[in-house]
Amino acid sequence: MERLILHEDPLSGNCYKIRLTAALLGLPLERRFYDIRKGETRTPRFLAEINANGRIPVLQVGDRFLPESNAACWLLAEGSALIPTNGWDQADMLRWMFWEQYNHEPTLATLRYWLTYLGEANLTEAQRVQIPGKRAAGEAALALMDEHLARREWFAGDAASLADVALFAYTHVCEEGGFRLADYPYVRGWLARVEGLPGFVPME
Amino acid sequence: MERLILHEDPLSGNCYKIRLTAALLGLPLERRFYDIRKGETRTPRFLAEINANGRIPVLQVGDRFLPESNAACWLLAEGSALIPTNGWDQADMLRWMFWEQYNHEPTLATLRYWLTYLGEANLTEAQRVQIPGKRAAGEAALALMDEHLARREWFAGDAASLADVALFAYTHVCEEGGFRLADYPYVRGWLARVEGLPGFVPME
Repeated sequence: MERLILHEDPLSGNCYKIRLTAALLGLPLERRFYDIRKGETRTPRFLAEINANGRIPVLQVGDRFLPESNAACWLLAEGSALIPTNGWDQADMLRWMFWEQYNHEPTLATLRYWLTYLGEANLTEAQRVQIPGKRAAGEAALALMDEHLARREWFAGDAASLADVALFAYTHVCEEGGFRLADYPYVRGWLARVEGLPGFVPME
Repeated sequence: MERLILHEDPLSGNCYKIRLTAALLGLPLERRFYDIRKGETRTPRFLAEINANGRIPVLQVGDRFLPESNAACWLLAEGSALIPTNGWDQADMLRWMFWEQYNHEPTLATLRYWLTYLGEANLTEAQRVQIPGKRAAGEAALALMDEHLARREWFAGDAASLADVALFAYTHVCEEGGFRLADYPYVRGWLARVEGLPGFVPME
């Protein structure tokens, strides 16, 4: 494979997903750091050369750039055991990855970012008024995960897949957004299983 | 393939994506209708039997249920020309599909739903205060698409793919959310190309 460079902010769980995927697969990954809070992904150079959408992570493969964390994980993991080969299981894995971006990340990750990294005092009124809705939706997301994991070890198929990597990233730090992992025992058991995977690396 | 049943609300672009994918592939699809606004996807029976997440669309394949529109499109299109076989193009297609769920659907689709289907007078304060932010983010999403399409015919690879299907759904009705397609000429050209695909069916 060509040289792999991850354009990232280490506080971002979306960036960590890609680093964890590469670690589980034993792929070497160079890293370039940006500070989201200083606007370093919105500079004219970043927008022109790295990602016109002004966001990290971006996975650079040779001279090509791939935004969107879950797509980057897919590219790294193609042909590996992290993607089920069975058609249904593969679609079911993607189901949880799309669910992560629509229901999980905008609630758990956003509250973590707002409350721990921006600070509640620095939020706009439009942000502040969304907190109760995001709190309820985040708790519903964790409850759905807990119910699912009561009956199975991994999110899709019979083994760890990219669905587990994608969901691990912001779940394991959700207490930074004011959620209580103690309320979700099956989620906690699953977090420990992910941490026990060969090659696992922690978030920094 | 087993019997395919789409659990849907015809006003939902997410449901339409699946219907359009099936039509482009010539796959027969039975339909079951639910009214989101009447809470028909939150009934105990729906939560227990169709989707514990209380949302449509859900694609039923025999006796198995697959939520998440883009995952359902993936399942239907596996092995077809709607998914590029080249690894980079496949990941790039998924990149646009994840972007659709994170940046595009929560802005263009949500404003359409709020303004045309719920009605601005019926919104909560927490919804109303989000309108300017969603308006700006939706315009940025359309501008990003327009810039991308200035240089290419389709979102990923050299032909129509699921990325085009996923993005077409809410883009072509975005004026119901107060956006102006006249401002995005390359998007308009691409909408016409999608409408010209063999087997295309319109939203109802």
